[in-house]
Amino acid sequence: MEKIIVFGHKNPDTDSICSSLVMANLQTKLRREEVIACRLGEINEETKYALEYFGVQAPKFIEKIEENQTVMLVDHNEFSQSVEGIEKAKIDTVVDHHRINNFQTAEPLFYYAQPVGCTATLLFELYKLNNLEVEPKIAGLMLSAIISDTLLLKSPTTTEKDKKSVEELAQIANVDKDVYGLELLKAGTNLDKYTEAELIKLDAKKVEKENIKYVIAQVNTVSIADVLKRKTRLEEEINNEIKKEGLNLFVFVITDIVNSNSEAIVLGDRTDAISKTYEIKDNIVVMPGVVSRKKQILPLVEKNI
Amino acid sequence: MEKIIVFGHKNPDTDSICSSLVMANLQTKLRREEVIACRLGEINEETKYALEYFGVQAPKFIEKIEENQTVMLVDHNEFSQSVEGIEKAKIDTVVDHHRINNFQTAEPLFYYAQPVGCTATLLFELYKLNNLEVEPKIAGLMLSAIISDTLLLKSPTTTEKDKKSVEELAQIANVDKDVYGLELLKAGTNLDKYTEAELIKLDAKKVEKENIKYVIAQVNTVSIADVLKRKTRLEEEINNEIKKEGLNLFVFVITDIVNSNSEAIVLGDRTDAISKTYEIKDNIVVMPGVVSRKKQILPLVEKNI
Repeated sequence: MEKIIVFGHKNPDTDSICSSLVMANLQTKLRREEVIACRLGEINEETKYALEYFGVQAPKFIEKIEENQTVMLVDHNEFSQSVEGIEKAKIDTVVDHHRINNFQTAEPLFYYAQPVGCTATLLFELYKLNNLEVEPKIAGLMLSAIISDTLLLKSPTTTEKDKKSVEELAQIANVDKDVYGLELLKAGTNLDKYTEAELIKLDAKKVEKENIKYVIAQVNTVSIADVLKRKTRLEEEINNEIKKEGLNLFVFVITDIVNSNSEAIVLGDRTDAISKTYEIKDNIVVMPGVVSRKKQILPLVEKNI
Repeated sequence: MEKIIVFGHKNPDTDSICSSLVMANLQTKLRREEVIACRLGEINEETKYALEYFGVQAPKFIEKIEENQTVMLVDHNEFSQSVEGIEKAKIDTVVDHHRINNFQTAEPLFYYAQPVGCTATLLFELYKLNNLEVEPKIAGLMLSAIISDTLLLKSPTTTEKDKKSVEELAQIANVDKDVYGLELLKAGTNLDKYTEAELIKLDAKKVEKENIKYVIAQVNTVSIADVLKRKTRLEEEINNEIKKEGLNLFVFVITDIVNSNSEAIVLGDRTDAISKTYEIKDNIVVMPGVVSRKKQILPLVEKNI
């Protein structure tokens, strides 16, 4: 039999990469057969920092999968965010913390989701439920994922479970959560090395719903103004993407991780999904206190579209 | 705030009724606020036996729900099997053991599913995980649900977890699982009191997929021949239903719970979904060793359609 593989979403963030490595570790222990961590895209700077810090190899890159391949999904469920060929895969297990949409299976499966800040929080729970020991480097990966997804526990998606997990995981991994956390987040704000075409895809989620297609992309920074110096080129690349993919809306969110604010470049023929709530001026919307795509921006777009 | 409600699927079987009562008990304890068990249809004879045996009132009947009502689903997820208005509800929690299909939410949720024989097996696990005591009558309801769904642990859907749960629950409920189990299943085979129109809806699951609509209904009996004495009238009612609901296929499965075999009446313009695998003669298909809709008949139809 082909080996079971596990992966997070396209344009992987730190949760998607770390949780696939952690899930492979967990499931290999549970099943006593090797489960292989994979990734659907490039490793970003933040994730690279985490992997190097804890001395863990990146998951294997895959582009598509064969029919009937047995797979596990972490940190996503929507087929539009998943691997090419997912429709014909055998989905065995999902551990996720997003809404369920654009997802279906032919057979019953193991599905575990909770509205917490990070997939890794649920994986940590599964280690405990199965009385499995967590090695320090695996704890470090889970810690990194939670810090990344919750912006060091400051995002409104953060729950008590995330906070408690961070405390415990920092202890097992033997790091100071605040010192390590800030270094990790800062590593992710080094955007200079990316072209504009790369920036808009770095952490982009594509949603298809009732014939409307849109993308919400997000980057973290310590200076929104710095990123907006590249506005003209970013707009060009976003408009290219809209044309190429037939999108109705592209929201490119730039989040200030120090002050917990965001501004976004909004383009497409359905910018009304944003402008019904916020004023858009020169394609830019200012969103004070907004940092979470899942909890703040996505529900807004869904409501207005 | 409106109270949270929990319900199983339309045309409720013993798992759907018992698991909604059990889930209401569990969640009321966990949340310290009342969660109310509801049902989407009539109580069948088997379920009635279980409720009377353990002295529990049936859940409240509801036909539809208001917009934004907070709900929990047990034993199903497909909107086509759920309450009227489910599309606009706030789905907070799902505990289920079916594939995921025709289901979506706007927000993250608690979703717990495993490929086990019965929803109640997972609910029993949740009591344990939360260190909550199980009262004897609640254990009796879970026991009844598992016996019903697994045909007293004989269905191919049965897992080790279901078997273990039945042992433990029978002890808490203080009944002999085999004696009680056979009485429970027999109570469900008393089909004489139903009209043919009622029989075909007693435990019917409707599936919509890629513009194909079909129903797989199932009844339990100790004599298939007895049920087939009513074949002409059953066919009339099935054809009425096909016309009324615009169905492509209706499979009415008659399962012999003593010998673990089934025969089915198959009608519609897509009977090829069955005839590709089994010979249909005079609208009847004989399926030796087949007892599980979920594990045996549904995958067959899906593969052939």
